[in-house]
Amino acid sequence: MLQGISSEAFVLGCSAIGAGLALIAGIGPGIGQGIAAGYGAQAVGRQPEAKGDIIQTMLLGQAVAETTGIYGLVIGIILLFVRPLMGAL
Amino acid sequence: MLQGISSEAFVLGCSAIGAGLALIAGIGPGIGQGIAAGYGAQAVGRQPEAKGDIIQTMLLGQAVAETTGIYGLVIGIILLFVRPLMGAL
Amino acid sequence: MLQGISSEAFVLGCSAIGAGLALIAGIGPGIGQGIAAGYGAQAVGRQPEAKGDIIQTMLLGQAVAETTGIYGLVIGIILLFVRPLMGAL
Repeated sequence: MLQGISSEAFVLGCSAIGAGLALIAGIGPGIGQGIAAGYGAQAVGRQPEAKGDIIQTMLLGQAVAETTGIYGLVIGIILLFVRPLMGAL
Repeated sequence: MLQGISSEAFVLGCSAIGAGLALIAGIGPGIGQGIAAGYGAQAVGRQPEAKGDIIQTMLLGQAVAETTGIYGLVIGIILLFVRPLMGAL
Repeated sequence: MLQGISSEAFVLGCSAIGAGLALIAGIGPGIGQGIAAGYGAQAVGRQPEAKGDIIQTMLLGQAVAETTGIYGLVIGIILLFVRPLMGAL
């Protein structure tokens, strides 16, 4: 009874849902980077003279934690703008 | 019984779901930044004289933790206002 | 009764959703690597002279934690670009 919906529309609609799902990956970096920020702030409170080294380590570790969030963003952008599945239709 | 739904409506409806899903990413920064705030407050309680350094480190780390939440927001806004999938229909 | 949607479109649409779901795996590495970054920053604050060894250990551990996020990314890319399911149709 979905006779009004074309194949293209079905793939595009599912791509919108897929893109949204991929962005959910961002939950992880958000939690992890916040934990790193907490430990970093605590460490600076204890050793303010090591602030530079602490922040540098925190930022380096947070950058690694960001990667999977970027994976999700990239797949989401691919689904919305590159649309590789449409070429296989 | 969904025979009244057009292809455009299907893509737009799925875009609404996709946008909502993308915003779920905000769970992460919310938790992570809250943890950072907790450790920051604790650290200031222990070393009030280091308050400036602690807050600076906390805010820097929280700013990094915000990024994936912004990714979700941007994809949600793109799905709702730019609607790139409609151009491929 | 989905006569407007071809079999190819159905598989491709579900592939988009599957790809999005696979990327959700990135939550784990994001959290875990952030925790590693937090402990790393804390350790550097306590022993700034051991910074090189601490960062090296942190990065090695984070690299291991990244693997499942890459699994999700690889399956997502396969679903979108290799599309092995279409060959079985």
